[in-house]
Amino acid sequence: MSTMLDRASAQARDAADPLRARREAFHLPAGVIYLDGNSLGALPRTTPARVAEVVARQWGGDLISSWNAHGWVDAAARTGARIAPLIGARAGEVIVADSTSVNLFKLLVACCQATPERRTILTEPGNFPTDLYIAQGVAATLPDRVVSTVPADHIADAIDDDVAVVLLTHVHYKTGRMLDITAITAAARAKGALVLWDLSHSVGAVDLRLDDWNVDCAVGCGYKYLNGGPGAPAFLFVAERLHDTLASPINGWFGHAAPFDFVDDYRPAPGIVRFQGGTPPILALAALDEGIAQFDGVDWDQVIAKSQALCDLYVTLVEDRCREHGFTLLTPRSAARRGSQVSFAHDHAHAICQALIARGVIGDFRAPDVLRMGFTPLYTGHDDVWRAVDVLVDIMTTRAWDDPRYTERAAVT
Amino acid sequence: MSTMLDRASAQARDAADPLRARREAFHLPAGVIYLDGNSLGALPRTTPARVAEVVARQWGGDLISSWNAHGWVDAAARTGARIAPLIGARAGEVIVADSTSVNLFKLLVACCQATPERRTILTEPGNFPTDLYIAQGVAATLPDRVVSTVPADHIADAIDDDVAVVLLTHVHYKTGRMLDITAITAAARAKGALVLWDLSHSVGAVDLRLDDWNVDCAVGCGYKYLNGGPGAPAFLFVAERLHDTLASPINGWFGHAAPFDFVDDYRPAPGIVRFQGGTPPILALAALDEGIAQFDGVDWDQVIAKSQALCDLYVTLVEDRCREHGFTLLTPRSAARRGSQVSFAHDHAHAICQALIARGVIGDFRAPDVLRMGFTPLYTGHDDVWRAVDVLVDIMTTRAWDDPRYTERAAVT
Repeated sequence: MSTMLDRASAQARDAADPLRARREAFHLPAGVIYLDGNSLGALPRTTPARVAEVVARQWGGDLISSWNAHGWVDAAARTGARIAPLIGARAGEVIVADSTSVNLFKLLVACCQATPERRTILTEPGNFPTDLYIAQGVAATLPDRVVSTVPADHIADAIDDDVAVVLLTHVHYKTGRMLDITAITAAARAKGALVLWDLSHSVGAVDLRLDDWNVDCAVGCGYKYLNGGPGAPAFLFVAERLHDTLASPINGWFGHAAPFDFVDDYRPAPGIVRFQGGTPPILALAALDEGIAQFDGVDWDQVIAKSQALCDLYVTLVEDRCREHGFTLLTPRSAARRGSQVSFAHDHAHAICQALIARGVIGDFRAPDVLRMGFTPLYTGHDDVWRAVDVLVDIMTTRAWDDPRYTERAAVT
Repeated sequence: MSTMLDRASAQARDAADPLRARREAFHLPAGVIYLDGNSLGALPRTTPARVAEVVARQWGGDLISSWNAHGWVDAAARTGARIAPLIGARAGEVIVADSTSVNLFKLLVACCQATPERRTILTEPGNFPTDLYIAQGVAATLPDRVVSTVPADHIADAIDDDVAVVLLTHVHYKTGRMLDITAITAAARAKGALVLWDLSHSVGAVDLRLDDWNVDCAVGCGYKYLNGGPGAPAFLFVAERLHDTLASPINGWFGHAAPFDFVDDYRPAPGIVRFQGGTPPILALAALDEGIAQFDGVDWDQVIAKSQALCDLYVTLVEDRCREHGFTLLTPRSAARRGSQVSFAHDHAHAICQALIARGVIGDFRAPDVLRMGFTPLYTGHDDVWRAVDVLVDIMTTRAWDDPRYTERAAVT
C-alpha cells in the first residue's frame, strides 16, 4: 500500500473512481470532510425539491385526495420495495414503518410468540443499546421470557433448544466488526431458532443477500447510509415464508386487510403490509425515498470495492503516519469482517475527535475511548481520507487536542 | 337561526369573526371548500419554509452537529410542550412520538401492567378501528387480558373491579359525538381503573382540560386539527403523578436516562421522555411544530365558539334547505355533546360525497351511509359553510349524485 501514502495517489484513485459522479448528487458543505455518514447520511441535492413537492403541491394543493392521487396509501410498501434489492430481498418482503426501535419490538414479539415453548432472546453484550433495551422491554412484556447475552464469537454455540430468537446487529456500531450472518443464521435454523438481524450499520454499504442466506427477519435504519434524513422512518424485512406465521403485536389500521372498511375486528393484510401499523409518515417517507434513489442503477460491486478501499486507506494511513501516537485499531483488518467504518482506540479519543471537528473533519467519538470514522462509498473520496488523516497527523504532532475547548462532550447519534 | 339562512348573513359573520385573520395563515386552494381538516389539516403557509430550513440548512448544512446546534435532541419534548396548553396539560406531561397506533399500544400495555390483578380493557364497539385493533393486539400479547366492548352510554356503569383501563375516543370519528370525559374518567377513578383517551378528533377543536379532569393518559393525532401534515407524528400524555408508575414496553434508546452513554441496561429517563422510544422524526416534527404554531396566541373561547357556530350553521342549513332530500342527522344537536364535525346519514351518501368533491366541496364519506363534514375554526368561514350547502342543495335538486362517475369508492383517511 505504500504507493497510496502520498496525496497524489489518492487523487488519482478518485479520478479513476467509477462512482465519482455520484458524489455530485449530495450536498457536502464547503470546508468539511464528512466521515459520519454512518450516523447521519448527507443530504441528496434532489431531496429539498422532492420534499417541497410533497409539502406544497401534494399536501397543500391536493389535500386529502393525495392519499390516492399521489399514492400515499402504499408509499411505505413502495419505498420498501426500493430497499429490497439493497438487502437481497424481494419487493414484497420489505416495508418502511416506524422507528428501528419499534420495528425491533414488533418482530421480537412476533418471533417469541411464534416459538412459545422457547424462553430466550439471545444477543450479545454491547449490542447497540436500543436493541438491548427493546429486548429487555419484550422480556418484561411477555410472560416467562429472558434476555441472554453471549459474546458474538460464542453466539452460534450458545443457540440451544430454549432460544426463541437470535437478535444481533450485523455491523457493530462501535467497532465496525461485521458478524458472520450466514453462519449464525444457519446455526439458528439448525436449532429451530429464528434470527432477527439489525442492518442499521450495514444497509447501503455492504453486501446483503437476506433471501440467499435464509434470514428470517431484519430491521434497518433510514438515516445512515440510506440518506433519508434525521430520524427517517426505518424498515423491516420478513421472509415471505413467515408472513403467515409471524404476527405483529401492534395491529395498527394500516396493517389491516381493509383499513377503509372501518370494521371492528382486526384482520391482517396479506403479505408485508400487515407489519405496517399506523398511518405512514408521508413527508418523511418522501425524503427517505429520495435518499434511497441515490442508489438507482449503481453497480453494487463498485460500492463494496470502494468501501473496502476507503477503509483500507484510512487504516494504512493512520497506522503509518500516526505510528507513534498511541492509536489501536479496533476494527477487523479484514474487509470481509468489517462494515464501512473504522474505529481506533485512543486514551484521548474524545478530545481528538473534538479537535478534528473544529478543523472540519467530522467523525464520531464513542465512549469510552473510540474514534470512529464512517466511509460512505457514494460520496466519500480517497482524497477526503488522505486530508482527514493529514489533519489528524497535525493534531497529534502539535498536541492540538490537548486543549480545554475539546473536553466538553456533545450528544450525537 | 332563520337570519342565518341567507348568504349575506354568513358573510357578515365572517366579517365580524375575530379569528378571520388566522385563515390567511393557511394555503387553501382556489375553487375548493375544504371541510375535511378533521381528516387532514390544511397546509400552513409558513410550513414549506420551515421544512426547507430543517432539510437544507440544518440537515444539509450542519449535518450531525444539528442534534445539539438545532436542538433536535429534545425536539419531541419541545413540540409536546407546545401541545400541552391545547389539552389542558403541563409542559412535562406531553411528548411527540411515533404514530397514534404505537402510542396507544405503549400506553395500553403500561396501564395493563400497572394493574396486574385486572383483566379487562374496556372500550366501545365502533370505536375508531385502530383503537380496537391495538387493544386486540395488546390482549393477544399480554397474558390473560380481554377486550370488552360496551356501548358508550353504558361504559360508566360497566366499569367494575376487573377493568384495568378504559380506552375511548373522546370525539367519535364517524358521528362526531363527544363523550362525557369528566364523568367517565371520574367513574373509572372511583373503581380503580385507569383511563386512556384518544383525542385524535378533539385536539385543536374542542375544550380539553386533562389535568383538571384527572385524566390518566391520552394520545392524539398530529395531522388533523393540529395541521402537522400527512402521517404527522402523534403525541401522548401521561399525568405527572403516573410517570413513575407506568412503563412503556417499547424501551427505545431515546427514552433512556442517558442515551449517549451507550450502556447495556435500560434505565428510563425522568418524566415524559421515557415514553419517547426511538430516534425522533426531525423533518416531520418540524412540520408538526409549525402546524401547532398556528394556535399561538389564540383566544381559545373564540375557537370553541366558532366551531360551535359553524356546526350549528351547517346543521340548520342542511335541515332547512335539504328538508325533502332524506338526510338524517347523526351528530348530537347539542354543541356540548359533539366535536367540530357534523355527520348526516343518507342512503346515497357515497355518491353525494363524490358529487360534492367533483364540485370542489371536500368532505368525507364513511361507510355505510355517512356524509361527514369537518369545521376547522382557524380557517373555515361561515360563507364556506353556506356555499357548501348551496352546492349540496343543487346536487340533491338536480340528482347530480345519481351518476356512475360517483359510484367508485376512494380510500381516504
